[in-house]
Amino acid sequence: MKHHSKDILIYGKHPVSLAIQNPRRKIKEIYATRQALNEIELPKGIIPKPADNRLLENMVGREAVHQGIVAVCEALPNADLNQILCDLQDADRAMMVVLDQVSDPRNIGAILRSAVAFGASAVIIPQDGSPQETGTIAKSASGALDLIPLVRVANLARTLDTLKKADFWCVGLDGYARDMIGKSKLPKRCVLVMGAEDGMRDLTKKSCDMLVKLPMNPAIESLNVSIATAVAMYEWMR
Amino acid sequence: MKHHSKDILIYGKHPVSLAIQNPRRKIKEIYATRQALNEIELPKGIIPKPADNRLLENMVGREAVHQGIVAVCEALPNADLNQILCDLQDADRAMMVVLDQVSDPRNIGAILRSAVAFGASAVIIPQDGSPQETGTIAKSASGALDLIPLVRVANLARTLDTLKKADFWCVGLDGYARDMIGKSKLPKRCVLVMGAEDGMRDLTKKSCDMLVKLPMNPAIESLNVSIATAVAMYEWMR
Repeated sequence: MKHHSKDILIYGKHPVSLAIQNPRRKIKEIYATRQALNEIELPKGIIPKPADNRLLENMVGREAVHQGIVAVCEALPNADLNQILCDLQDADRAMMVVLDQVSDPRNIGAILRSAVAFGASAVIIPQDGSPQETGTIAKSASGALDLIPLVRVANLARTLDTLKKADFWCVGLDGYARDMIGKSKLPKRCVLVMGAEDGMRDLTKKSCDMLVKLPMNPAIESLNVSIATAVAMYEWMR
Repeated sequence: MKHHSKDILIYGKHPVSLAIQNPRRKIKEIYATRQALNEIELPKGIIPKPADNRLLENMVGREAVHQGIVAVCEALPNADLNQILCDLQDADRAMMVVLDQVSDPRNIGAILRSAVAFGASAVIIPQDGSPQETGTIAKSASGALDLIPLVRVANLARTLDTLKKADFWCVGLDGYARDMIGKSKLPKRCVLVMGAEDGMRDLTKKSCDMLVKLPMNPAIESLNVSIATAVAMYEWMR
């Protein structure tokens, strides 16, 4: 059970199935209980290693709902934004999420999960300042990393320019914005730009086509970024 | 620094201010750095204990954003639902959240935080099966516990009946519901009933006046309950 430090563990029947179905995902080993093997179909190339619950708990921790199956995987290669934009060239409606200054990997994972639910095409984060611990992201994403590309970019402001040239409107969520989200319809081809607790950086803000805020009781300082992002994506989708 | 095991630690300038302003909150001690004391006004009865960052980190952990101030507090007494219903008797619009089977205290804390943001009047959980660790709830709520009552009730189905008699409509969120949320307007006096990953219990479901589902891509099994609750509350508010 020696694994490379960059390996990530994917567990639970649904997330492991998604990893298996993802052609970009390299699976190195699968550990499974006899019962789990009766319930999940493995691809031909992979011979599972027999495991009991105790071994699996040692791998992923006691809290984790592993459902009898753990896959040791390589982290996914960085997704290619140009390819994504190419695929979306003729889409009438498409939405992406850009996260600026979001440093908690659990938030990024949670956002990936809701991004799939609400029909986003990609989640984009800056290379610098974003967490590397893909394992924690994968855990919070519970399968979503195999369903939606997480794109790491070198320069966020330049990426927003690229997106605008590709006919997307960049909508920044900002507590100090004048306009309320939902007051007018969000653009059909829409990039939702989110900051963390301290908001997005000035340069990111300036690169947005418009700024909107979420309606909320001022008694609370801010929403968690994963909540705010989900609500903004829902507003776009409905 | 011996504290009662039921004490909870509230930290960060905004959450501590909210605790101070909450007449129901008993504060036992406040530890603060010199700098934090320049920035926050303490009530007359409380003489702060001087602290440095290291002491505060020992109390709340290194990750926690304590901003130089930690309050040692008693857990709040259980809120009285009858009093809340009495206060809301003549309200044209009011919303509450009922959580069934939500066992992760971080989810409950996150829901309290968004409940304040989106104008809920209370969050209701069953006494049995809900987590007791108020400390973790308080941490995730970042101040919201002092802004909105968390009501623990003995019998959830009976509570839903009480709410219906008090002129509230109970709307259950259920992935298998026929109707999509947002298709028709949510009731003005609305109780949003949420289940965790495995959904709500049958008896809870039967006690709802109607069931609705959130629109979502079926590739993902479910939304995190704190995300789903926030989106449902937003839909009610907007």
